[in-house]
Amino acid sequence: MTYQEVLAQAKSCMGKCHACPVCNGLACKNTIPGPGAKGLGTGAIRNYQKWQELCVNMDTICENGEVDTHFDFFGHQLALPLLAGPVGAVTLHYGDKYDDLAYNNVLIPGCAKSGIVAFAGDGTNPAVMEAAADALKKSGGCGVPTIKPWNQETIQQKMELVKAANPYAIAMDIDAAGLPFLKGLTPPAGSKTVEQLREIVEMAGRPFILKGIMTVAGAQKALDAGAAGIVVSNHGGRVLDQCPATAEVLPAIADAVAGRMKIFVDGGIRTGMDMFKALALGADAVLIARPFVTMVYGGAEEGISAYVAKLQTELADVMAMCGAHSLSDIKRSMLYGY
Amino acid sequence: MTYQEVLAQAKSCMGKCHACPVCNGLACKNTIPGPGAKGLGTGAIRNYQKWQELCVNMDTICENGEVDTHFDFFGHQLALPLLAGPVGAVTLHYGDKYDDLAYNNVLIPGCAKSGIVAFAGDGTNPAVMEAAADALKKSGGCGVPTIKPWNQETIQQKMELVKAANPYAIAMDIDAAGLPFLKGLTPPAGSKTVEQLREIVEMAGRPFILKGIMTVAGAQKALDAGAAGIVVSNHGGRVLDQCPATAEVLPAIADAVAGRMKIFVDGGIRTGMDMFKALALGADAVLIARPFVTMVYGGAEEGISAYVAKLQTELADVMAMCGAHSLSDIKRSMLYGY
Amino acid sequence: MTYQEVLAQAKSCMGKCHACPVCNGLACKNTIPGPGAKGLGTGAIRNYQKWQELCVNMDTICENGEVDTHFDFFGHQLALPLLAGPVGAVTLHYGDKYDDLAYNNVLIPGCAKSGIVAFAGDGTNPAVMEAAADALKKSGGCGVPTIKPWNQETIQQKMELVKAANPYAIAMDIDAAGLPFLKGLTPPAGSKTVEQLREIVEMAGRPFILKGIMTVAGAQKALDAGAAGIVVSNHGGRVLDQCPATAEVLPAIADAVAGRMKIFVDGGIRTGMDMFKALALGADAVLIARPFVTMVYGGAEEGISAYVAKLQTELADVMAMCGAHSLSDIKRSMLYGY
Amino acid sequence: MTYQEVLAQAKSCMGKCHACPVCNGLACKNTIPGPGAKGLGTGAIRNYQKWQELCVNMDTICENGEVDTHFDFFGHQLALPLLAGPVGAVTLHYGDKYDDLAYNNVLIPGCAKSGIVAFAGDGTNPAVMEAAADALKKSGGCGVPTIKPWNQETIQQKMELVKAANPYAIAMDIDAAGLPFLKGLTPPAGSKTVEQLREIVEMAGRPFILKGIMTVAGAQKALDAGAAGIVVSNHGGRVLDQCPATAEVLPAIADAVAGRMKIFVDGGIRTGMDMFKALALGADAVLIARPFVTMVYGGAEEGISAYVAKLQTELADVMAMCGAHSLSDIKRSMLYGY
Repeated sequence: MTYQEVLAQAKSCMGKCHACPVCNGLACKNTIPGPGAKGLGTGAIRNYQKWQELCVNMDTICENGEVDTHFDFFGHQLALPLLAGPVGAVTLHYGDKYDDLAYNNVLIPGCAKSGIVAFAGDGTNPAVMEAAADALKKSGGCGVPTIKPWNQETIQQKMELVKAANPYAIAMDIDAAGLPFLKGLTPPAGSKTVEQLREIVEMAGRPFILKGIMTVAGAQKALDAGAAGIVVSNHGGRVLDQCPATAEVLPAIADAVAGRMKIFVDGGIRTGMDMFKALALGADAVLIARPFVTMVYGGAEEGISAYVAKLQTELADVMAMCGAHSLSDIKRSMLYGY
Repeated sequence: MTYQEVLAQAKSCMGKCHACPVCNGLACKNTIPGPGAKGLGTGAIRNYQKWQELCVNMDTICENGEVDTHFDFFGHQLALPLLAGPVGAVTLHYGDKYDDLAYNNVLIPGCAKSGIVAFAGDGTNPAVMEAAADALKKSGGCGVPTIKPWNQETIQQKMELVKAANPYAIAMDIDAAGLPFLKGLTPPAGSKTVEQLREIVEMAGRPFILKGIMTVAGAQKALDAGAAGIVVSNHGGRVLDQCPATAEVLPAIADAVAGRMKIFVDGGIRTGMDMFKALALGADAVLIARPFVTMVYGGAEEGISAYVAKLQTELADVMAMCGAHSLSDIKRSMLYGY
Repeated sequence: MTYQEVLAQAKSCMGKCHACPVCNGLACKNTIPGPGAKGLGTGAIRNYQKWQELCVNMDTICENGEVDTHFDFFGHQLALPLLAGPVGAVTLHYGDKYDDLAYNNVLIPGCAKSGIVAFAGDGTNPAVMEAAADALKKSGGCGVPTIKPWNQETIQQKMELVKAANPYAIAMDIDAAGLPFLKGLTPPAGSKTVEQLREIVEMAGRPFILKGIMTVAGAQKALDAGAAGIVVSNHGGRVLDQCPATAEVLPAIADAVAGRMKIFVDGGIRTGMDMFKALALGADAVLIARPFVTMVYGGAEEGISAYVAKLQTELADVMAMCGAHSLSDIKRSMLYGY
Repeated sequence: MTYQEVLAQAKSCMGKCHACPVCNGLACKNTIPGPGAKGLGTGAIRNYQKWQELCVNMDTICENGEVDTHFDFFGHQLALPLLAGPVGAVTLHYGDKYDDLAYNNVLIPGCAKSGIVAFAGDGTNPAVMEAAADALKKSGGCGVPTIKPWNQETIQQKMELVKAANPYAIAMDIDAAGLPFLKGLTPPAGSKTVEQLREIVEMAGRPFILKGIMTVAGAQKALDAGAAGIVVSNHGGRVLDQCPATAEVLPAIADAVAGRMKIFVDGGIRTGMDMFKALALGADAVLIARPFVTMVYGGAEEGISAYVAKLQTELADVMAMCGAHSLSDIKRSMLYGY
């Protein structure tokens, strides 16, 4: 199955998602439940658009060597600097072909086989994280369970659960307090101080990634808390309307903390071209979330491998046309105007 | 009744107003009589648009405390920094379900019950202000009668009338000379010098608010005249075409006079997100006008409370997601690019 | 007849012109013959658009005095700073209700009666200028014959002809060499050196206005040649495609030559608001061309007076709302951002 | 046949090309095979658009002399600074009315007769270059064979072949590695180092032009390699998506290398106005590619001469209106804002 065939297949079973030719937030806008963004729904649209506004500097006067896209993720070699982002409540937002348990059982091993790593989403139902932990165990820990910012006690329990699967890293989407459907739940979820995050990092006992950083100040607090990495992310516009695009805030954040922690970024990244731009702006690797849902609904494991292969080919092509033979060759000066 | 239900109800009885899902000036454009703006009608559109162009800086690494939206309005505690703007000639502009007297009889007590304050509009018919004064008296003075810039003698008479109701403050829309339907009326309305305004402030004998300030020079003149507050406002585009948006002029005005007088702002503010942006740019509180007409036409007092509740929830949500626990925590640096 | 009625009347007899509600170049685009612009036809559109992008600074804290719009045009008092621009070949471009002779016989006295001055266009047919000279004579010289840049000998003949009418001033559209229908005519028309223009100024023996200046260098050459005034103009986009808008080049030209010669401007000026902006940017007065054709076709002399009255009311309104009581009060600082 | 007639004729036989009134990339977008651009297809659109955003400074106060558009191309006089760009695989991309051999047999002599020079494209089929060499020989070498960046050995063979035709110059499209249909072909094509290019320049033994330069660094490498000229080009968007437009990168490249090598530019240049802008930004001459395909399909040699005549008239007109009498008079200051 090609990427196009998986997409066509997905169109028939995606519920509120239209499985658009280009996943840019225009068709779903503010559809929640559904894949849309919060408020007026412009968050996801802006994320996508700002990558498109960046231009790359083509220069093919250089050695005609092979292009190497391998990425070191905390000691694990990935085929390319790509992670599947965490998604939760898939039945609610994407249709009843999958529930979170079945989804993770396809996503986690599928990504592992394709040479990348999946983030597994947390849920209000404890069974979701339990099943994700099981799936991770079967895949040799190739994955990143993502715990919501519950109270410290609940986090402690979830930690114990997922640490048993020996995952590559553990993450927390610190911005999840803004999710409309998390409001007023028990246990409560919300903001965390640096001090509380330091405790959480310690509980994790392995690389801890803080997801939902949109400012230099936030990145510095994550560093102070001892995080091994951050995800520059506005949660695809789903936790707060009218944030800047991640492509807008990434450069200043990278200037502030690069080299001292890993920088990941998500939000509207759809192609290898977008990945190249994110890396040129200072990211170490990218997360892509929604398109993996489409691929799983449309083609299960085959969908994942088709999309990963497409991204790898595109990224390698842009790298070759801009004179980069490895990820470390990608510089901000390869973007026009920088 | 939810906000959406009130809006749906309003659609059937709003005359020239379309009760749009988003009140952004596009559908009414230059419809006067009606809710439109003057000239080409782009004034209200630009007001709305410029708030949308601002982005907020999400940062949830902070204490997970309660968010307090209370605002001190000249010694009176409001539930949130929100005032219902003055509207006049509602029958002419919005349809015959209400006249100005009946409108104020719903708006003033409705706002008081919802924990906010309404500005009451003036009219060419003296009975309008008389009835507003009555309604204010019944609500314990919870309101701001807004006198047009008539000649000093007429102003004196109106002052006596409204002071009997002991209102929280008295206002004047100094830009009303540009209203097409005020042209050539008796008594004449028009510009005022600083000297004349000083007399008017003295007549008021309580906090006096000057509405219709769009420049730093104008704000300084208002301060010189002894005003306790200004409303940065272009009258929703209804007195002069092609003014800048209030969001554009607010920062420089706040830089010039903040701390020495209260700064209010109106023009295209529709959500708690917009309120947050206005406060971040330097406003102490905001006025919202047209949407309250829709709420009153569609749901009377219930419409008011549904809208106020919606705004309070939205404002608190944005505050929490940007790390502000009280109004004084809101800083300009919480907007992207500032 | 109101302006709207004249416009409605014009719609039925304007040939290739659509007599649009707003004359902004969008409907005619590059229709030549017809009222359109050259090349892709974007010249007239940009002219109009750039005025709209400017915003005015409302400030009504000032004396409530009368607004005086009178303008001194080389010793003659006009009701407002407005001149009707030169138009030629009206039958070809606007339809056969008028020919150039009949058109000038309505336009010139009509403008004089409305308190303004008309520029009369030149033609390849010598009878056009002869008839214009006659019409001017009957109106006491209230007009500005506009000679094309023919060879010096032809210019000399035309000068003699029009001087007999004792016009207020004489003009030349130095950019006319770019008119498609003037190409290859006899006598030839084209560029002029400063030296040649000096001779022409001398022939004129009265205020000489050079129309078609779009650069500071051009304005300085006009000054060197002894011109009493310039018209900052790109000929409505009809002589060269993709020029900047006149609103864009006017400020620098005014900075360079204001006070040493009169500065007029045309191009997309349609309302009193646009006039105010042109004056704020540094023009002494404006020319409006196409809308006067519409007014003459739709309402003859009555059309002219309706349009002039509309412009006067609009200009006075904007002046009052920005605190200007006379033309000399209008400053660049009354525009937002200046 | 006029240009418009040729265009109308072409409409019926252009396959995937729509022979649009303005060839701006909007209709074909990312149609490959076909005339479209790679990826999302925005490359060609941006190329076209960025020329349109530039404005010219009209100034007709100058001598009314003749305009001379002649250009010296490495010792050969061309009627204007125009070269027909290389196009390959015309049957695949434009329809079966022509194959590459027949196309070159019309294009090369047609351009020579119209006073300009054509670039001949390379193909995966060796017969293409052989036939182009034959056509060049018959036209006295008036043309520029364009070799793809194969391995050095293949280049050596192609060089021998085309040198026999004694062409005015030889070119290489160094960016061709990005062409989707060249991927994985034998012999392989790809990037070249400065050292390899130096060998190729030596093989050529006559002016060598490197096509596909988009950065200052790339231009300097081309200069180091001994190239006599470069073509600032992103291959019409067909080798890499989301490059800047050539109009955007041209000024900095011209500032860096002008005077030391010839600078050509292509990408969305369609009219004499566009040509003028390219020259003002620093190009010595321009390449136009796709419109010549349309002209050949629609009118063969007659199509070429109609288009060349149109471009010459337009260029001369803009030059006259901006006060340039020869190509060396065209300065960057003739563009607004420069």
